[in-house]
Amino acid sequence: MANITKKVSWSSRADESASSASTGVGEGTPLLNGSEGPRFSRQDLIRAQTREIPHNEKLLSLKYEGLDYDNIENQLFLEEERRMSHMGFQCLEISRWVVCGLIGFLTGLIACFIDIAVENLAGLKYEVIKRNIENFTETGGLSISLILWGGFNAAVVMMGSILVAFFEPIAGGSGIPQIKCYLNGVKIPRVVRLKTLIVKVVGVICSVVGGLAVGKEGPMIHSGAVVAAGVSQGRSTSLKKDFKMFEYFRRDTEKRDFVSAGAAAGVSAAFGAPVGGVLFSLEEGASFWNQMLTWRIFFASMVSTFTLNFFLSVYNKKTGDLSNPGLINFGRFESESVEYYFYEIPLFIAMGALGGLLGALFNVLNYWLTIFRIRYVHRPCLQVMEAMLVAAVTATVSFTMIYFSNDCQPLAPENNEEYPLQLFCSDGEYNAMATAFFNTPERSVRSLFHNQPGSYNPLTLGLFTLTYFFLACWTYGLAVSAGVFIPSLLIGAAWGRLCGILLASFSSNSSLWADPGKYALIGAAAQLGGIVRMTLSLTVIMVEATGNVTYGLPIMLVLMTAKIVGDYFIEGLYDIHIKLQSVPFLHWEAPATSHWLTAREVMSSPVTCLNRIENVGTIVDTLSNTSTNHNGFPVVAHTLGNDEPGKLCGLILRSQLIVLLKHKVFVELARSRLTHRKLQLKDFRDAYPRFPPIQSIHVSQDERECMMDLTEFMNPTPYTVPQDTSLPRVFKLFRALGLRHLVVVDNENRVVGLVTRKDLARYHMGKHGLEELQLAQT
Amino acid sequence: MANITKKVSWSSRADESASSASTGVGEGTPLLNGSEGPRFSRQDLIRAQTREIPHNEKLLSLKYEGLDYDNIENQLFLEEERRMSHMGFQCLEISRWVVCGLIGFLTGLIACFIDIAVENLAGLKYEVIKRNIENFTETGGLSISLILWGGFNAAVVMMGSILVAFFEPIAGGSGIPQIKCYLNGVKIPRVVRLKTLIVKVVGVICSVVGGLAVGKEGPMIHSGAVVAAGVSQGRSTSLKKDFKMFEYFRRDTEKRDFVSAGAAAGVSAAFGAPVGGVLFSLEEGASFWNQMLTWRIFFASMVSTFTLNFFLSVYNKKTGDLSNPGLINFGRFESESVEYYFYEIPLFIAMGALGGLLGALFNVLNYWLTIFRIRYVHRPCLQVMEAMLVAAVTATVSFTMIYFSNDCQPLAPENNEEYPLQLFCSDGEYNAMATAFFNTPERSVRSLFHNQPGSYNPLTLGLFTLTYFFLACWTYGLAVSAGVFIPSLLIGAAWGRLCGILLASFSSNSSLWADPGKYALIGAAAQLGGIVRMTLSLTVIMVEATGNVTYGLPIMLVLMTAKIVGDYFIEGLYDIHIKLQSVPFLHWEAPATSHWLTAREVMSSPVTCLNRIENVGTIVDTLSNTSTNHNGFPVVAHTLGNDEPGKLCGLILRSQLIVLLKHKVFVELARSRLTHRKLQLKDFRDAYPRFPPIQSIHVSQDERECMMDLTEFMNPTPYTVPQDTSLPRVFKLFRALGLRHLVVVDNENRVVGLVTRKDLARYHMGKHGLEELQLAQT
Repeated sequence: MANITKKVSWSSRADESASSASTGVGEGTPLLNGSEGPRFSRQDLIRAQTREIPHNEKLLSLKYEGLDYDNIENQLFLEEERRMSHMGFQCLEISRWVVCGLIGFLTGLIACFIDIAVENLAGLKYEVIKRNIENFTETGGLSISLILWGGFNAAVVMMGSILVAFFEPIAGGSGIPQIKCYLNGVKIPRVVRLKTLIVKVVGVICSVVGGLAVGKEGPMIHSGAVVAAGVSQGRSTSLKKDFKMFEYFRRDTEKRDFVSAGAAAGVSAAFGAPVGGVLFSLEEGASFWNQMLTWRIFFASMVSTFTLNFFLSVYNKKTGDLSNPGLINFGRFESESVEYYFYEIPLFIAMGALGGLLGALFNVLNYWLTIFRIRYVHRPCLQVMEAMLVAAVTATVSFTMIYFSNDCQPLAPENNEEYPLQLFCSDGEYNAMATAFFNTPERSVRSLFHNQPGSYNPLTLGLFTLTYFFLACWTYGLAVSAGVFIPSLLIGAAWGRLCGILLASFSSNSSLWADPGKYALIGAAAQLGGIVRMTLSLTVIMVEATGNVTYGLPIMLVLMTAKIVGDYFIEGLYDIHIKLQSVPFLHWEAPATSHWLTAREVMSSPVTCLNRIENVGTIVDTLSNTSTNHNGFPVVAHTLGNDEPGKLCGLILRSQLIVLLKHKVFVELARSRLTHRKLQLKDFRDAYPRFPPIQSIHVSQDERECMMDLTEFMNPTPYTVPQDTSLPRVFKLFRALGLRHLVVVDNENRVVGLVTRKDLARYHMGKHGLEELQLAQT
Repeated sequence: MANITKKVSWSSRADESASSASTGVGEGTPLLNGSEGPRFSRQDLIRAQTREIPHNEKLLSLKYEGLDYDNIENQLFLEEERRMSHMGFQCLEISRWVVCGLIGFLTGLIACFIDIAVENLAGLKYEVIKRNIENFTETGGLSISLILWGGFNAAVVMMGSILVAFFEPIAGGSGIPQIKCYLNGVKIPRVVRLKTLIVKVVGVICSVVGGLAVGKEGPMIHSGAVVAAGVSQGRSTSLKKDFKMFEYFRRDTEKRDFVSAGAAAGVSAAFGAPVGGVLFSLEEGASFWNQMLTWRIFFASMVSTFTLNFFLSVYNKKTGDLSNPGLINFGRFESESVEYYFYEIPLFIAMGALGGLLGALFNVLNYWLTIFRIRYVHRPCLQVMEAMLVAAVTATVSFTMIYFSNDCQPLAPENNEEYPLQLFCSDGEYNAMATAFFNTPERSVRSLFHNQPGSYNPLTLGLFTLTYFFLACWTYGLAVSAGVFIPSLLIGAAWGRLCGILLASFSSNSSLWADPGKYALIGAAAQLGGIVRMTLSLTVIMVEATGNVTYGLPIMLVLMTAKIVGDYFIEGLYDIHIKLQSVPFLHWEAPATSHWLTAREVMSSPVTCLNRIENVGTIVDTLSNTSTNHNGFPVVAHTLGNDEPGKLCGLILRSQLIVLLKHKVFVELARSRLTHRKLQLKDFRDAYPRFPPIQSIHVSQDERECMMDLTEFMNPTPYTVPQDTSLPRVFKLFRALGLRHLVVVDNENRVVGLVTRKDLARYHMGKHGLEELQLAQT
């Protein structure tokens, strides 16, 4: 069982490397609670580790650390602020804008690169296979074409999958759940590294060219985030290059802000939706809305779309025409097809409900599949083989569907087919099934939206929906870099168009339902909403990608219905995956019925406190103690024995102590070496974010006897709550201010406990009221 | 001088009634600070009240109370929560959605009513005057037409102005500054009352029909907010009708959420911009982003647009066609004119800079005008006369401009003129100046956007820009209900189109600049951005009103440039008016250079504290003491004499104490009358929000000797900060959680001070670093 629990992580290898690199586990939550934490006894934990766990999402991993969005206003910080002039602050503000502009520019370039690479490679592939199929259609021996197609797909997907499975498992999937967690305040190891970015970009090109049922849009969000994290720090730890720029931004708060901008720029580039990007960032990440920050995020988004457009316009030899934004373009909906009527609203809502149902089915199937993968497919080579299998099966199924389809359509100039396959159709006709299967998913979506009424017969669409649904479901969660947006849109567009055609055929006045493309759009929105359950941002993204505001209301109604229906059965796909990783994710509010829980019951206790002037040996021992693994330590005025807790006078982080130990900031040394350089914020920034583990710091026996004065370095005014504060109140404070540690004090201002992310994430609303998750050392 | 200071309020009459109705001044800020608050001595205050004050915006009024967005989690509340089942919470959630739906519906209806009323009345007016002018053009005697026009305008405006000046001054202007303040957490008296709504709606119809340079869009935002505040409370205090519904929502937190939704619904109805509405609410009001709340706001916005569209489509005999949303519709930009090219971007930016300059000029002029009005035009009858004067002058100027214009254009079917004036043009032609002046501003904007190239000659546009600029500037701030959006758009559209025409004439290849309508749109955005300085929301509103996403990037660039350029000179128009009212408005962040200020220096001290079990006489005296006028009182365990402050154990509000006194919740009475009904949250909710003043509550001499037990009613866990907390830290906590009182405690958890809104709003960033505003009893 321990083995299985262990594999509940973003992927098996990320897990291993994370636990060795991690500086410590938990935010000060002692793994073994003392007597004051009755809700979580040692028995619970042992049970969690020894019992067969039927539902992995009932666990909360202790592996993930939190990010610290609270500013540490220690004396060093205040001195630095005091030295800074008004001008200095303005320069900082300007450099924030510059960084955001750079983020947008680079994200746009990456999107451009992905787009051009995919276009060319996929074009090459489809050309070769098309010629091959045409050759063999008359002579017979189409099985050779199938083998060519399947083999090519499997080979390309293998490359992408090897990269992901062996080199950087965190780059798998769409990356959206990981970025959601990061913005929420959870440190996902290696998620914003340069290596991750490279694997992600190359991986997604392989996946799309390999013909999997995936999109290249989701990974753009992750790519944008990595770019942002890199640019804003003004250095690359991987390349060991420090540009000595933007040093002020080397802390969690600033970095998070930039990562928000990066994610927004990614959405913006992917869908040509700058406003949607901003809303995505806010919906997924923000807790405190800040106008200037939002405006900067918007700037990054705009620059990103702009860059992508400009370079694509140059590439497409239409330099300067910036009117076609985004990687996916839903195409221009013509005015006559744009209008909808009052009586169509109930139909849209019904389609939304259907989308919710299908989305829930998709999520349930994917949930089971993911559980299965966690248990049995966790070795990298198995993962690569599964990816290749899926690639081959996708090709085979597509080929079979095209082969047996007899839906022939006349070649018309307005049905702008890229690779029309004639196959067994008569001359001047093409196989309609092939427009859906023998194409990149983006183009298939566009065809479904815009092809003339009558371009598809209902059976083709029905079969396509069915097969693509299962293929997409099987594909999501493979060890490849790929997004789920486009497959969802494609499934929805197919059944949406089917609905449109059926409506037209049932109705006496067929001109009323003339345009099945409209229903394809609504279906696409419904299906996507049913799977990912995003709300406001998705509406805006869809509207921006459509390029037409008129559909705002129906799309919104459809997304809302899909969300309500879907939520009745199961959560959104991203949330499922986050839960399966046991990430301590904080939702927007505490569970509604949790007012009776107080900080006293929620907090971790007893807490290891340090004295204001503390013995070095004690500090080293505390940091080395693997059974506690705290990351934050309340500093108290003086502890009178072990029984009476001391009065709170500050809070210090493990990372700060590590830097202090490394620089040997001991009271005795300071006295002897008067010329010794005073420690500055720069030293902390240089070490950020990869602080060395305590084991790597050598402290001699003599030094252990020295004392350390923490006064200058600790945060002198940490936020506190009294013991009787209710959980929702604690939650609100914690979430709104992005805290990592919240000190619980008694009436005399003495430390009695510490509330961390895990203590709050533990409680959630189940079907039968408040439930608690179990902590596990996964 | 005292007289002048006194008039610095939303209007003179609101001020008087507010001060008599108000239950108290200040949030616990003692007007006369004790020795511990050295930054604000009594001398400062006296100086503020006796010295001639050159800049009114350097004052901070003590008149405004704060709203309490923090939940009072006292025992009554916890008991109620405990009694509520999981089902109960779900019902609450559903009723929130129902309320939002109702808000959207009613706001849409109001918008519909305004639109139809304005269309018909203005249509009637222009028909009559047009016929009159046509009659007199040949016979001579056009001066009679002028008198008719001017007289009609003045009469209609007089009606609107009398309503505003005599009955409800708070309904004057666009209402956006007031709603901004409300959402920020400042209680503006009477701003969300039914009477205000009625005056607002009738007033805006009069203003627009009266031909003033105003729009009907701004007031919709205020109207939506009033509707929201009314509907969500399930009763009308004005009508003395309690529907016994939604009682749970009778508190500041819930009400604010609904008012956000109402404001969004207003924007949505006004501009057909549901997403823009949501962003407006968030940009102006939100501090804590909550996904469910945002989604509900979006729902209200959507319902509002939908309702408006539906009823307008019925009215326009095109039932069911929902494709033309909003009160103002920029019309559909055709595909060929939609595109823009890379080389146009610098031009757009230059136009943005021009918009910023013109906007700053507008704001400076309006600022001087407002100062003048505050000093000399504060009597209602003077205000009415000024409004009539403006109306007459507007008509005269318009008439003169039309009269002397010789810009004749051929009547073409595509230039869809509503009231073409032939005047001295030859047959089959019309006066181009009249399309701009002889029309509702909304229609003029549309003509400037969409009329064929060549419909206006440059001189016409130049003269129109010049005159309309000064007219609009004079009009804003009159005692009429009117918005500034449309006049700004109109000015901008005029000079924007002028730019387009000039570019085309300078360029050799005129087809490159074929469409001056595009430049009209950019100019409109630049001018509006330069005046109001809204950012993200304005971009989205413009994009949604245009109905085309393609212009997103240029509009954003233009708005950003306009904001940067404009901010260099003076603040946005709304912010100027807020400052001139000396409202304690909290911005997004504390001033950058304020880290050296701590809670000790910022807080008000000493604080009047109450004991947990307190003497009734003491409470009555404390509440009656006009020199302190606190609104919140820390409750302490036991005060040992006056010197040593007691340990904090709760916080109780003036309004709660009033209710307790009214129900005579005394310890002695509880003992004697065992059957006495226990006080419930319902009693507090019934009294909300108009708690009676302490003077109206009779407490006999015997009762004064009784004791009151505050334990059950006080908030037992108020947020606290230690004395050394820096101002930005205090600010962040205060702003993020929407607090009204923040208790400052010492190391022993004893109360040493109280931080309220005014203490934080006092510090702001001036040209030369940190500045302090002076508190004044305006």
